Amino acid sequence: MKIAILGGTGPEGSGLGLRWALAGHQVVIGSRQMEKGQQVAAELQAQAPAAAANLSGMDNLSALEGADVAVLAVPYSGQERTLAGLQEALAGKLLLTIVVPLGEKAARVWRPPSGLAAAEEAARQLGEGARVVAAFQNIAAHHLADPEHVIDCDVLICGDDKADKQVVIELCAAAGMRGVDAGLLQNASVVEGLTAVLIGINIRHKIKHAGLRITGI
Amino acid sequence: MKIAILGGTGPEGSGLGLRWALAGHQVVIGSRQMEKGQQVAAELQAQAPAAAANLSGMDNLSALEGADVAVLAVPYSGQERTLAGLQEALAGKLLLTIVVPLGEKAARVWRPPSGLAAAEEAARQLGEGARVVAAFQNIAAHHLADPEHVIDCDVLICGDDKADKQVVIELCAAAGMRGVDAGLLQNASVVEGLTAVLIGINIRHKIKHAGLRITGI
Repeated sequence: MKIAILGGTGPEGSGLGLRWALAGHQVVIGSRQMEKGQQVAAELQAQAPAAAANLSGMDNLSALEGADVAVLAVPYSGQERTLAGLQEALAGKLLLTIVVPLGEKAARVWRPPSGLAAAEEAARQLGEGARVVAAFQNIAAHHLADPEHVIDCDVLICGDDKADKQVVIELCAAAGMRGVDAGLLQNASVVEGLTAVLIGINIRHKIKHAGLRITGI
Repeated sequence: MKIAILGGTGPEGSGLGLRWALAGHQVVIGSRQMEKGQQVAAELQAQAPAAAANLSGMDNLSALEGADVAVLAVPYSGQERTLAGLQEALAGKLLLTIVVPLGEKAARVWRPPSGLAAAEEAARQLGEGARVVAAFQNIAAHHLADPEHVIDCDVLICGDDKADKQVVIELCAAAGMRGVDAGLLQNASVVEGLTAVLIGINIRHKIKHAGLRITGI
């Protein structure tokens, strides 16, 4: 698959991008500035020469050209503006959002003023026919930095379309994680909020990588 | 400790009560009707004769007399009314709420119209000095029925007082589970909502006991 990571220069986006490139997907690191996307792609190529041919960097809009999946990896504060500039290019495309809305105190559950999940806000902004799936909110960037590292976390996946969620389940596996269907997109508010809970657990235990596993399945 | 379980006749409350009684705590199964509390206590005594002396049944108000901890185990629809009738008896007491607010479609995350967690609503209703801790929301009743059953789930604990949360961590251990401090009481909205996510996972996987583990600690 060709995967465009919008705002892919941060630790989450680039960590996932590297794993997907190593799994054989074509990954484009998108950024507001083309040079920044290219620079991070070059760094990832240096980190994993075997996957160099699968990695490139562009501006966000160019990254979307021909992409099968778009990944939204910007901070929540940049979500609305980023989507506004890409609305046409995103039409009909599967948008996988990994965005986590966090308040001033990151360990306290915080919701956008709309009362919706950030993922629901993205779907609403893109309008009818939007194909938004939320996932990876609970995976610490710390886990993703080293592509050899085995991640002891499951990925909760929320979305309204089963086939789209199946694509994301496959992307979880390609990145070395188990994806678990967590229900409709509205459930993303809980998955997003869970990140604040995990950040608090990290703080109290002086660790960087608290995660969660679903048991019994 | 003496533990009063308000609405303790349901599967969650009675399952926890049996485990606590077996661990040596004094457990009173409370009910709106004294007879119902007594009947369920007798059933638990028959199920675990070794713990019979630690189990009794009463009406909710009498159950609270001399109790160190009150456990709120009623359906969300009965929470407000139950607390209203017990407000004085609960003054100054630690209230452990296991209540889960669920909507019409149980697998869809649902929040009380107030926008608060059910646990926060309880604290607000009890007023200044309320000592509310939320826990056990994500433990399937199916897990609790057999006290010998090893439960592959952690308990997320939300509350504003560390000492009160420590008491609940000990009650988790007494019931055979690991308690994990999940932050302030406001975080309970996520823990409550997670139950809907787990119910959906149960439905999709045709199981009864999906749960979660915190990893990395």
